[in-house]
Amino acid sequence: MNAASIVSIGNELLNGHTTDTNATYICQQLLSIGIPVVSVYTVGDDIHKIVAALKRAADDADIVIATGGLGPTDDDITRQAFAEYSGVKLQIDSALLDKIREFFAKRNTQMPEKNTIQACIPQGASPIENPLGTAPGILVEKGGKTLFALPGVPFEMKQMFESFVLAHLKRQGGERFVVIRKVRCFGEGESAIAEKLGNLMERSRNPIINSTVDAGVITLHIVASAIDKQQAEQLAQNDLENLRSLLGDLIFGIDEQTLPEVVGQQLARLHKTVAVAESCTGGLVAKLLTDIPGSSEYFTGGWVTYSNKAKVEQLGVSARLIEQFGAVSEQVASAMAQAAKNKAQTDFSIAITGIAGPAGGTEQKPVGLVYIAVTTYNDCITKRFLFPHSRGIVRLRAALTALNMLRLALKG
Amino acid sequence: MNAASIVSIGNELLNGHTTDTNATYICQQLLSIGIPVVSVYTVGDDIHKIVAALKRAADDADIVIATGGLGPTDDDITRQAFAEYSGVKLQIDSALLDKIREFFAKRNTQMPEKNTIQACIPQGASPIENPLGTAPGILVEKGGKTLFALPGVPFEMKQMFESFVLAHLKRQGGERFVVIRKVRCFGEGESAIAEKLGNLMERSRNPIINSTVDAGVITLHIVASAIDKQQAEQLAQNDLENLRSLLGDLIFGIDEQTLPEVVGQQLARLHKTVAVAESCTGGLVAKLLTDIPGSSEYFTGGWVTYSNKAKVEQLGVSARLIEQFGAVSEQVASAMAQAAKNKAQTDFSIAITGIAGPAGGTEQKPVGLVYIAVTTYNDCITKRFLFPHSRGIVRLRAALTALNMLRLALKG
Repeated sequence: MNAASIVSIGNELLNGHTTDTNATYICQQLLSIGIPVVSVYTVGDDIHKIVAALKRAADDADIVIATGGLGPTDDDITRQAFAEYSGVKLQIDSALLDKIREFFAKRNTQMPEKNTIQACIPQGASPIENPLGTAPGILVEKGGKTLFALPGVPFEMKQMFESFVLAHLKRQGGERFVVIRKVRCFGEGESAIAEKLGNLMERSRNPIINSTVDAGVITLHIVASAIDKQQAEQLAQNDLENLRSLLGDLIFGIDEQTLPEVVGQQLARLHKTVAVAESCTGGLVAKLLTDIPGSSEYFTGGWVTYSNKAKVEQLGVSARLIEQFGAVSEQVASAMAQAAKNKAQTDFSIAITGIAGPAGGTEQKPVGLVYIAVTTYNDCITKRFLFPHSRGIVRLRAALTALNMLRLALKG
Repeated sequence: MNAASIVSIGNELLNGHTTDTNATYICQQLLSIGIPVVSVYTVGDDIHKIVAALKRAADDADIVIATGGLGPTDDDITRQAFAEYSGVKLQIDSALLDKIREFFAKRNTQMPEKNTIQACIPQGASPIENPLGTAPGILVEKGGKTLFALPGVPFEMKQMFESFVLAHLKRQGGERFVVIRKVRCFGEGESAIAEKLGNLMERSRNPIINSTVDAGVITLHIVASAIDKQQAEQLAQNDLENLRSLLGDLIFGIDEQTLPEVVGQQLARLHKTVAVAESCTGGLVAKLLTDIPGSSEYFTGGWVTYSNKAKVEQLGVSARLIEQFGAVSEQVASAMAQAAKNKAQTDFSIAITGIAGPAGGTEQKPVGLVYIAVTTYNDCITKRFLFPHSRGIVRLRAALTALNMLRLALKG
């Protein structure tokens, strides 16, 4: 069975500035095509250490994925290390040089001289196209080992990994298939969900079910393995059905689906629109909705009414209502939602008002207190929440909870 | 100079479920007492691989920090690996066993038989107390090398690191202090900035200057080392001044400062307010501004006018203007900014309209085309940008560019 080893390159990984999320991503992706990662070597921008790590990685596994050190500056020396590992010299690839020049030309700037080095690859190696940046990747096949050099910038690395590396490795062929399905839940804690699953989470089962949690979203990973792909897929599918019947409405999505995406799909299917009025989340719900391509179909716009004045003047919330109940209250949340729906002439609306902190809390209204109102067909549902977390998490939890309330309302 | 190497142990680190944040933390902590980390080895729960990694780590550096694999289950084999590395046997430590029993007794449960193994340490090694869990750590000193085994659970590891490891290493005496300063730039590419720095980025200098890039933000890391702390601080400070004079207004912040934070501080200092009107960024600028605690001092609110209708009805942009020039145009960006400033009665405003993609582009107006307008004292500055990236990056680059335009306008 094929296996892989990762070499993560860069001083920023060793001085505590950057956490190596590239390795996590590559591990996930490789496992999904049945290739386990057996080791990760992290080294700084030092050519001897990089070459030593490449050799050790190639001892551990037939596939080596290196990330980082392909930029244009003097501390970017991965291409030199790949040349030294291969026992060859670097040579300039004129087609690559043209592409890099073109990248700058598109941006109406001239290529800095420094970027010439990015057109160099080891003799006998193949370049890997980078449509998102100036650093091409490198593919070296030598002595039965396949080595890839990918950029360290995550979105460039991912694009290159998905468009080139996965396809290349799939062509080489793996022997055991691993299928991973994800079931995404919102509305209960990790341990409450684990209890509902009972012995499905035992480690000796196949599939194995793991759970991870991020801002209230519980993701259950179903990892099924079998000697053929269809069998692995069937095993995973069976567990997916098991989880559906055990968890019901707690499940909002499958695999890579996000809450904003699922809500967007519901709205698009129903040909309905939504508006938002946000106080403490300050535009985050609108941002999450518009993260989704095509969201203009169901999202027309919204108001960020951070101050009381904005709530009164822009949305038309009654100043007396704010005075009587406070800006963070069920009444004001509800009034904001009604106003947003009326002014934007949408079918639904979401409104959020709360205290994100760190300052502004009182005994009656502590940091983390959030009121969320969702208007649906003839109804306005308002709920009170207490998210005892830091500012960023309070805001994200509030935004996701609002989207989940809309999801459930649209289902019912 | 002392140096350290990290061995991160656990299958979960190799199957993509867990990102190794422990290594990042340890790198930061060690660097703060002048001990650089030169390598990180990540291996699964396999005794041969763990022992091999310990040997390689001890080859690289005099200090080895291993995390993970100290739990009570069969896949936790770090203590066996430490014994094998030391060439000794495991032996039960009765004082440790008492402590583990006590841990369970405090929780009114009996110690499961499986936990006995956690009272075993290699002959000649010292246990490290774990007040937060059942897994004690291990200290081995052999052949001039100091090896620590710490739990993999982050909060247990951190507690043990801070209460024991740091103190132990400080007693051994660090010889060199490392000071890191960061200089954050926006407005030019990484290689253009590197060219301005010339030989400041040479690898043989002290301080070393590294650069990293994230969504258009270039961070220059100044890493200075010296035998005493004050000297290292002075070296870093000198380079900070060098960078200031070479890069001028490209620098927006120092150390952990972000663009939204810097813009917020400028506004607060001037006692001025800002409003936003966002189309393609869909609330992202408002979200970034309100990420900052206390932003209500200068941010009152804004409009997310995603549809043309919302631009006309909520902001009062002329429908004829949109018809004549298109929603993505200099004219509409400028009208949105003026309207936001007038309606919100703020001192300044930001407006963004563009095509975030993936759909909606034409030859004249391709995906990535963004117009940004910033109104200042008596002026409205409108600029055209082309960000040839994916939707998420187009949106983030546009939002940060808008904030940077406001920053520069407030300076001038």
